[in-house]
Amino acid sequence: MPSEALTVDQLDEKALLGRIFPRLGPDTALLGPGDDAAVIAAPDGRTVISIDTLVQDADFRLLWPSGYRTTGFDVGWKCVAQNVSDIRAMGAVPTSLVVSLTLPGSTEVAWVEELAAGLAAGIDSLAFERCSVVGGDLGRGSQIVVTAAVTGDLEGRNPVLRSGARPGDVLAHIGSLGLAAGGLAVLESNVDMANPGDSEDHVLAVLAMAQCRPRPPRTGAGPEAAIAGATAMLDVSDGLVRDAGRIARASGMAIDLDAGYLASRAEQLAPAAARLGADPLAWVLGGGEDHGLLATFPPDAVLPEGFVRIGEVTDGAGVTFGGEAPPAIGWDHFAG
Amino acid sequence: MPSEALTVDQLDEKALLGRIFPRLGPDTALLGPGDDAAVIAAPDGRTVISIDTLVQDADFRLLWPSGYRTTGFDVGWKCVAQNVSDIRAMGAVPTSLVVSLTLPGSTEVAWVEELAAGLAAGIDSLAFERCSVVGGDLGRGSQIVVTAAVTGDLEGRNPVLRSGARPGDVLAHIGSLGLAAGGLAVLESNVDMANPGDSEDHVLAVLAMAQCRPRPPRTGAGPEAAIAGATAMLDVSDGLVRDAGRIARASGMAIDLDAGYLASRAEQLAPAAARLGADPLAWVLGGGEDHGLLATFPPDAVLPEGFVRIGEVTDGAGVTFGGEAPPAIGWDHFAG
Repeated sequence: MPSEALTVDQLDEKALLGRIFPRLGPDTALLGPGDDAAVIAAPDGRTVISIDTLVQDADFRLLWPSGYRTTGFDVGWKCVAQNVSDIRAMGAVPTSLVVSLTLPGSTEVAWVEELAAGLAAGIDSLAFERCSVVGGDLGRGSQIVVTAAVTGDLEGRNPVLRSGARPGDVLAHIGSLGLAAGGLAVLESNVDMANPGDSEDHVLAVLAMAQCRPRPPRTGAGPEAAIAGATAMLDVSDGLVRDAGRIARASGMAIDLDAGYLASRAEQLAPAAARLGADPLAWVLGGGEDHGLLATFPPDAVLPEGFVRIGEVTDGAGVTFGGEAPPAIGWDHFAG
Repeated sequence: MPSEALTVDQLDEKALLGRIFPRLGPDTALLGPGDDAAVIAAPDGRTVISIDTLVQDADFRLLWPSGYRTTGFDVGWKCVAQNVSDIRAMGAVPTSLVVSLTLPGSTEVAWVEELAAGLAAGIDSLAFERCSVVGGDLGRGSQIVVTAAVTGDLEGRNPVLRSGARPGDVLAHIGSLGLAAGGLAVLESNVDMANPGDSEDHVLAVLAMAQCRPRPPRTGAGPEAAIAGATAMLDVSDGLVRDAGRIARASGMAIDLDAGYLASRAEQLAPAAARLGADPLAWVLGGGEDHGLLATFPPDAVLPEGFVRIGEVTDGAGVTFGGEAPPAIGWDHFAG
């Protein structure tokens, strides 16, 4: 990149905000950015809230061994994806984000502008029409840290907790499984991924982008699961076995995963995994960051579109895989 | 400190959370920590929200030139003080905090435990009985970054914006002025402040602690100002002249500061400033981080207890000091 690129230490806070705000998309708040705080609607008298952070060199690299350079757009998009997933997992609809950016002075202003565009695109493409960035904070630091807090509206429904699974419930999932983990392996490998769009290895490029710009299931999936009677739900952010274990523990139940079905999901990733010398089942069972939803439903529930049965809830404790202990592979690596 | 001190890289996330949660004080949420997101009450159908970050070496030093070591308690307390000030400045009451901690692996666990205690003490001592830490996030980074998002309840009132000041309004302030700026000067000096409690220089010790653990005015001050008819209000976080300028600009008005009164406030700090070779008026006019409230009221309003008249609103633009240009000293230094 040219050495004359404008960096954030050449702008004051007001000038940098002037680059960011026009890229954030339409403001949906009762009172948007510009005062000490924003005001958002909470029509049912409750607000759902969560917070999540992306840190350079812990959650992403600016330059990966594969040659891929993480863009500001990637980080903005991923910030939206991971934050709103927590709101959807409660059965709620995202209503606002507040975003704090900690940036080294050497960060290029263009990178920050892309980050703002990635936030806006993430909100728009994941189709949260009631949601926007309503406030933020800017500061300096030795590495890039992007923190967002996200709010949501339960629309009069009860929140879907992790603790409500009952014996005989169906365990169901919607979303990708193992793609982001595979993408992490691609990015960390010596495969040339400097320009994924030009890569002749389309499968590996798709995996890499699933890591950089995860595509959670459609907006409505969380609320639809709540309406369909989901007894427990969470966002799969740390891997299927680990997150299924959280439902099992919170509910005081056991969960058995459908080994045949999950092996078939892994089989689709086998050619890519073979290229990298990796185990695709470890990606499916242990990989996080796809931000699918894992939910339990009563046995007679009609699963919302896109949810697939991947196991069942029984009396007992812990997680099994086709009745056996899950293969002890992979998930500690992804747990962070 | 002993080399065998337990550090965060020796604990997994669950174990570290197990050290933090018991120190956070009573949970006031409808649904507190432990699920994908928390649920808080928003009884009037709106939620006020803001976000603010403290970064090591930008907002605080772990070891200051004066020998003072910033404690986790200081950072937790200051995190609460600066975040809730933004909510009070809207005339609202704080209802929850979500907190993201980015920590180097070498951070001592005891320091993090103190931070949790500082969050709890800040919430308790600043008397926000409806408020608690309802969620969080933990991650690794090269320096300590503490981000909190804070929510508030307007209790049926309109939010007090920066834009409502009218000609003839009284400009009033509640809180400290210049103490935190003086404390920054103390901490950055060669004065021995390794143990402020043992310091024979009580004035300088008070200033140092005003920087490390700012004491904003009492909880009720913001809502009381709203009820008393405040036409504009903000949190003084970047210095009196700069923040008065924000009200002036947002309202399309001029503000004249009471030079005599503010000079008398500076006079109280003169002995301490003289010790450090500093200008106390620069602290009063340019210093931020005291987190007082600056508000405008109609001429016939009864000011809530503790608010002091420090100027007036007139037609025009900009900020004057006794009718003259403000002394051009100090505020760029504190602007960050």
